[in-house]
Amino acid sequence: MKAAPSPEEIRRHNLGTLLRHVHLSGPASRAELAERMGLNRSTIMALTSDLTSAGLVSEELPRTTGKAGRPSLVVRPESARVHVLALDVGADRLTVARVGLGGVVLDRRNAPRQPDPFHPEEVVSVLVGLSRQLMRRARPDTVCVGVGAAFSGIVRQEDGVVRRSPNLGWTDVPFGAELGRRLGLGLRVSVGNDANLGALAERTRGAGVGLDDLIYLHGDVGIGGGVIVGGRLLGGVGGYGGEVGHMVVNPGGRPCGCGSHGCLEAEAGELALLAAAGRTGRTGREAVAAVVDAADRGDVTARDALHRVGDWLGYGVANLVNIFNPAMVVFGGVLREIYLGSAAQVRSRLALAGLGAAREQVRLRTSELGDEATLMGAAELAFADVLADPLEALARSKNPLP
Amino acid sequence: MKAAPSPEEIRRHNLGTLLRHVHLSGPASRAELAERMGLNRSTIMALTSDLTSAGLVSEELPRTTGKAGRPSLVVRPESARVHVLALDVGADRLTVARVGLGGVVLDRRNAPRQPDPFHPEEVVSVLVGLSRQLMRRARPDTVCVGVGAAFSGIVRQEDGVVRRSPNLGWTDVPFGAELGRRLGLGLRVSVGNDANLGALAERTRGAGVGLDDLIYLHGDVGIGGGVIVGGRLLGGVGGYGGEVGHMVVNPGGRPCGCGSHGCLEAEAGELALLAAAGRTGRTGREAVAAVVDAADRGDVTARDALHRVGDWLGYGVANLVNIFNPAMVVFGGVLREIYLGSAAQVRSRLALAGLGAAREQVRLRTSELGDEATLMGAAELAFADVLADPLEALARSKNPLP
Repeated sequence: MKAAPSPEEIRRHNLGTLLRHVHLSGPASRAELAERMGLNRSTIMALTSDLTSAGLVSEELPRTTGKAGRPSLVVRPESARVHVLALDVGADRLTVARVGLGGVVLDRRNAPRQPDPFHPEEVVSVLVGLSRQLMRRARPDTVCVGVGAAFSGIVRQEDGVVRRSPNLGWTDVPFGAELGRRLGLGLRVSVGNDANLGALAERTRGAGVGLDDLIYLHGDVGIGGGVIVGGRLLGGVGGYGGEVGHMVVNPGGRPCGCGSHGCLEAEAGELALLAAAGRTGRTGREAVAAVVDAADRGDVTARDALHRVGDWLGYGVANLVNIFNPAMVVFGGVLREIYLGSAAQVRSRLALAGLGAAREQVRLRTSELGDEATLMGAAELAFADVLADPLEALARSKNPLP
Repeated sequence: MKAAPSPEEIRRHNLGTLLRHVHLSGPASRAELAERMGLNRSTIMALTSDLTSAGLVSEELPRTTGKAGRPSLVVRPESARVHVLALDVGADRLTVARVGLGGVVLDRRNAPRQPDPFHPEEVVSVLVGLSRQLMRRARPDTVCVGVGAAFSGIVRQEDGVVRRSPNLGWTDVPFGAELGRRLGLGLRVSVGNDANLGALAERTRGAGVGLDDLIYLHGDVGIGGGVIVGGRLLGGVGGYGGEVGHMVVNPGGRPCGCGSHGCLEAEAGELALLAAAGRTGRTGREAVAAVVDAADRGDVTARDALHRVGDWLGYGVANLVNIFNPAMVVFGGVLREIYLGSAAQVRSRLALAGLGAAREQVRLRTSELGDEATLMGAAELAFADVLADPLEALARSKNPLP
């Protein structure tokens, strides 16, 4: 328990808060900002003046004003000049994007994921190559204030070490440090679990805007979970929390990549669906979509497969609803398609196994950001430093504004 | 997102923080408090002076001082004068205690729980009667600053309504309001789920002191869960979170009081153990202890029953470890005995179904506060107001200090 902050800490906090407002909610007048932050207009003016001098925001007269008197200047984020690099190591591709303040994707590059074995050096090389292409195409007066990466696996967030990724076969890989060294931007690379970042993104700009209690379930080869509890991402003591894909829903059931049996991802994930539908070989989004399409056309095997998988998904969702009492569960990645094809089954299982009080309050939704969810989450991770302490973070970036 | 606090808010925050330090950690010198709170000694002096005038703390010279120079005054909570009423509606008894600042039980009274049907009016009457006895025995210069109650059921915390308690057969009972009205102390009655309060208590003064990620599993007739995530109690959007007893671990298994099948409480709770051991009729702590004793003496049926129940408990714990990555899981109430009798089974299941990274970090422990856990949690709930804003809360209490 610490005492209250000093005036200098208060100023930094207020600078970050103001910048966060325009980053998340878009341009706002000084008057609006004063009201939202509970500060007087002279304090807001001092704060915007500091942020304008730093090149983080700009101020301009509003285009139209319905009111008499001097109009309040509109503060907008310098999206084209202040950006981050957001990286996404997905199940079947690598993506890098330059994302501007305010969450605008300025530029992006993809590369297909190479076949196994999938060495860390190759992944880092591809990501660095894509990043360099983007940085070369950026205007010379821009500044990169952070780098964030979404990774499908168990990540130690404080140093970006990938502890375990069954899908890529990695164990204890210093991914963030190596990526940072090779990029040579003088910025640390923040790495997060892709489902956690998807949860943050859906809450920031997607299906769950403004919700403090939200669960995002991300399907690729496995099922990852990002859980927001009371407005904060569930981390646990070591940052490994949220592994809801390894909740056992069917004891003694299908073997799981983790070594256990009957985990949610083993029973309700992409591979379970494709196996139940008798479709081996092809995997990924198209293969899943093909099963859902076949079921829609009346294919009995496909329908039964979705029914079976939806039942286990329903058990998982009911357990999570009872444990977390969330306002929303969001299905992303290939789970979006799986949920759309099995929603009735999921809801029926939830009705049986969910407790009334919590069940009444939850909404089930598909991801609004779709394939962008994890990438946008990586961008938010990269913006965290500049939003916490704007001027300090800007001073640390190697390529300051001219 | 709000701006930083005003000077008056900072002062209130600091008063509460200082009081919380001596409440939780016991008497401390001004110098120690200055260091812990990161404030200078003149600020600490002003704060302790305010709290002393209000009668919340006292200051005295330390008994011995090894150092030269003027010794730092020791600040101690006025435990004998400032107290709360803590109430516990348990599975087999009702308890009321006067608990002094600092967590000292000053006085207590029990009454056995009446046989079913168990009407809310009767419960409230018994609790009010016990409370009056305690208040009459209190010194005239004491002040009651809050009332907190632990309840075995789903509680809406903001107004103390019991939404559902299968064990008592209650639905939507305005328990807190009715109790407050009948007590006539002019204080609101805060009501919390007993397992949630047990979690708070174990973290404050029990097995999990200082841990920010902790799960407390409370067994009475059912299994309740209190989950602390990142230092805060998991509430969920409606405050119904933490119902881990209704996580389905065995689909299609034993029927549960909630209407579902195979819930953790239906498979690993007291009733499951007694049924598996072939002991119907008696329930409660002694009946559970008798099964554990029998198993220790080599009774094969009792041993098999503990084995079976421990296996499901292990599935539940493994799921919670994967989902929450907690530093500790604490077994309280009758689950203390069940865990002690089946620890090997629980650990073996955890080893199979728990993910390495999270499994390495969790410790399994029995409750240190034992039968007091939920009662002490109710006391902490009752202290919340005076710790948040000491002078304001004191002014609101009807019986101010002389």
